[in-house]
Amino acid sequence: MKKDDDNSAKKETQGMTVRKSGNFSEWYNEAVLKAKLAGFAPVGGCMIIRPYGYAIWERIQSALDTSLKKSGHRNAYFPMFIPEKFLHKEAEHFEGFVPEVAWVEEENEKYALRPTSETIICDAYSKWIRSWRDLPMLVNQWCNIVRWETKVTKLFLRTREFLWQEGHTAHATKEEADAEVMKILDFYVDLAQNHLAIPVLSGRKSDSEKFAGALYTTTMEGLMPDGRALQMGTSHNLGQNFSKAFDIKFLDKDGKEKNVWQTSWGVSTRLIGAVAMVHGDDRGLVLPPRIAPVQVVIIPIIFEEGKGAVLDACKKVKERLGKDFMVELDDNDAYSAGWKFNEWELRGVPIRIEIGPRDVRNGEAVLVRRDTGEKTAVKLGGLEKAVKDMLDSIQNSLFRKAKKFLDDNTVSASSYEKLREAIGKRKMVRTSWCGSPDCEEKMKGETTATIRVMHPLGKKGAGSGTAKCVCCGKAAKHTVYIAKAY
Amino acid sequence: MKKDDDNSAKKETQGMTVRKSGNFSEWYNEAVLKAKLAGFAPVGGCMIIRPYGYAIWERIQSALDTSLKKSGHRNAYFPMFIPEKFLHKEAEHFEGFVPEVAWVEEENEKYALRPTSETIICDAYSKWIRSWRDLPMLVNQWCNIVRWETKVTKLFLRTREFLWQEGHTAHATKEEADAEVMKILDFYVDLAQNHLAIPVLSGRKSDSEKFAGALYTTTMEGLMPDGRALQMGTSHNLGQNFSKAFDIKFLDKDGKEKNVWQTSWGVSTRLIGAVAMVHGDDRGLVLPPRIAPVQVVIIPIIFEEGKGAVLDACKKVKERLGKDFMVELDDNDAYSAGWKFNEWELRGVPIRIEIGPRDVRNGEAVLVRRDTGEKTAVKLGGLEKAVKDMLDSIQNSLFRKAKKFLDDNTVSASSYEKLREAIGKRKMVRTSWCGSPDCEEKMKGETTATIRVMHPLGKKGAGSGTAKCVCCGKAAKHTVYIAKAY
Repeated sequence: MKKDDDNSAKKETQGMTVRKSGNFSEWYNEAVLKAKLAGFAPVGGCMIIRPYGYAIWERIQSALDTSLKKSGHRNAYFPMFIPEKFLHKEAEHFEGFVPEVAWVEEENEKYALRPTSETIICDAYSKWIRSWRDLPMLVNQWCNIVRWETKVTKLFLRTREFLWQEGHTAHATKEEADAEVMKILDFYVDLAQNHLAIPVLSGRKSDSEKFAGALYTTTMEGLMPDGRALQMGTSHNLGQNFSKAFDIKFLDKDGKEKNVWQTSWGVSTRLIGAVAMVHGDDRGLVLPPRIAPVQVVIIPIIFEEGKGAVLDACKKVKERLGKDFMVELDDNDAYSAGWKFNEWELRGVPIRIEIGPRDVRNGEAVLVRRDTGEKTAVKLGGLEKAVKDMLDSIQNSLFRKAKKFLDDNTVSASSYEKLREAIGKRKMVRTSWCGSPDCEEKMKGETTATIRVMHPLGKKGAGSGTAKCVCCGKAAKHTVYIAKAY
Repeated sequence: MKKDDDNSAKKETQGMTVRKSGNFSEWYNEAVLKAKLAGFAPVGGCMIIRPYGYAIWERIQSALDTSLKKSGHRNAYFPMFIPEKFLHKEAEHFEGFVPEVAWVEEENEKYALRPTSETIICDAYSKWIRSWRDLPMLVNQWCNIVRWETKVTKLFLRTREFLWQEGHTAHATKEEADAEVMKILDFYVDLAQNHLAIPVLSGRKSDSEKFAGALYTTTMEGLMPDGRALQMGTSHNLGQNFSKAFDIKFLDKDGKEKNVWQTSWGVSTRLIGAVAMVHGDDRGLVLPPRIAPVQVVIIPIIFEEGKGAVLDACKKVKERLGKDFMVELDDNDAYSAGWKFNEWELRGVPIRIEIGPRDVRNGEAVLVRRDTGEKTAVKLGGLEKAVKDMLDSIQNSLFRKAKKFLDDNTVSASSYEKLREAIGKRKMVRTSWCGSPDCEEKMKGETTATIRVMHPLGKKGAGSGTAKCVCCGKAAKHTVYIAKAY
């Protein structure tokens, strides 16, 4: 399982060698490794998140944590060790998670390394919550998670340990829990679309795909370039399932003792993988400016003559832009400008600024967009505005391009034959479903695709009386989106 | 091991019942539990860091992370699973940590849950580092740590799982590694003294107390109110011990292949325990303003008459102060003002602002300092300045008070008898030591106190030729500070 963590250093091949339109999976690995986002760990199924990858995670954390705090959520930290008996308390939950649990044992106890923390947090809530005054309880934690899977490792997408946030809330009524689930899903969709520049379909999961122990699960799903859907975040209404199993009761204003209603929700470092897949190209990563750890890289174009003036100009530009943007000046003498162009392209930095002797004479700088390669000479006086406008333009353009891909690859299927054909072509298929587990099972068995979302938000439901289930022909209850998935 | 996590809710006793000058250990537990900083987990030896405690950790993280990033350090994340064979590579390191390791096993592998991450990071560095151009490598990670101790649990001070940051750097020369060790120790001392308001002694550890596998260890130590020293942060020069064991070599500018020099360093959630111990009083926590999650709490003093005007005034004050400070308005109708006073005192909020009908008429607010209880009526026009000045004054005053305690309880001992006597009185003892492990062992065996720091920074060494070892009478090499420790 030990793999080469740093191709570029070892093989001395700097750039990408695989095309995105060729072997997508190999392209992804190469792009992630060469951008130094992450590497394979010397531990089966684990990854190392390298500083550049972690810096993206910090920007994601910062964006989401701000939304969570503004809406009254507070962070906490619960033990990663979950007593075995806790996992048993909610039967569906136990069945859903136990197959992929890693255990630590001592004489009389056996602890699971948290695959998720509902149970240990519910135990705490059963002690902390007494009265309606204690509600809502809105707690989140940022932590590591262990799922001891044996499938193939995929950096950011499938590893035995990953980082995430998990929110756990308790409310007095189902309505409040419903509202919380939607509020969080909105935060997630905002994060995906407005920060990661990835368009998503959001809505409910079918019962067979919901979180183990939940009343219902909502999700946001992106469509990756290989035509497979990626679940990018989920927000669950746990109903009173856990609160009954863990006896979480409160004295309500009416003097009656009631079980709380709960939600839980999470997004993980998987989001970084989604960004790499959706926006990258044959030269490596392309990062959306709002989550890029370096938004602008300045590269001096140096000849012996005028070297000092060029470096001075670069430093001044760095100082100026550093006030508003995340800027790096790459004045390392050991590498050529050409090498640096390739390197920062691999890493997906949105804007490269080139400054050479002629630019100094003209009072200009050359801005190069990572996403299109377009070059623009800009007068130094208007640099801040030009950079800001270009970053905005890149952010918007990445989203539009990804949205077009999603739209172009989402097709309607009115018959089972058309569904199979579209799935074969790796499309996201919009169709109608009667709601029966038998039809769902049949579609999944025959196409290996699954219902990713039903009742997509902002779309009219299909159960208006006219639509028929694509599988059995009976009256449909749900509009569903079906695709193969990661 | 299952304990009551929330005394206040269950026993309905709101305030402190134990005096700090009485049973210090019980006082500490009660203060931490009632302030809702942390609770005992239903997992042997583990704690839950509750939102209020975690918010302090976030402020500590923010202060330190800013210093680290400004000085070029970058965060990353390495797996928590350490292959057993890695721990074996550095013999001293193995012996030091294996007794307290928790293991996860699968068929052909055995993984330690990281007690610290030197080994797995060294393995990565052996792949990432090729040339002098890759140095210095300055990486930090914020993560959870597992030390499967069987001693009694003490919230924040001794738990099987805790949170920390661990820095791991690689350098071309010993001198650069030495400088890094000192730079980090300076950051730690700044954090302790200027943020936590805790004076510390800093300097080197003796060989017997150094980090397992290090060349030498530096530390900062605080003196707790019970006269025991607390190690609050350590910064190690690892020399080339790990770089030889893990074969971390670089091609230097002179064309020669060399082993890197390394450092590692960390502070943990233990710092929160130190803050509680040092500053707390008989009414609960007292938090230094620079790490208090709530710096100012506004409590309306409400009578039926003029209730609206009081609440309006409180909201306006909150809005104004919220721009510069971390402010909470406690307008919860369910509790009396007196109950709230006690509650926010328990939680150690630096300033309480009371606004009642008479204050509204007079255009005033009453500011109450948590540390002294002093009340000051302030005209609303000058509120921001008054709050800022009072927060500064509290921060300084807490430090001065703790410094006086440290100074008053640090005594010099010129004879072994005086050393024993002073240790018996729970003092921090300044004395001289010849440097021999035998004398160190003897002192430890007979007094249960240990050398906490030697060669304290900013003090003249004792090895000037005149001082004698307090134990054997031979020429002293080091000024040392000896105390019982946590």
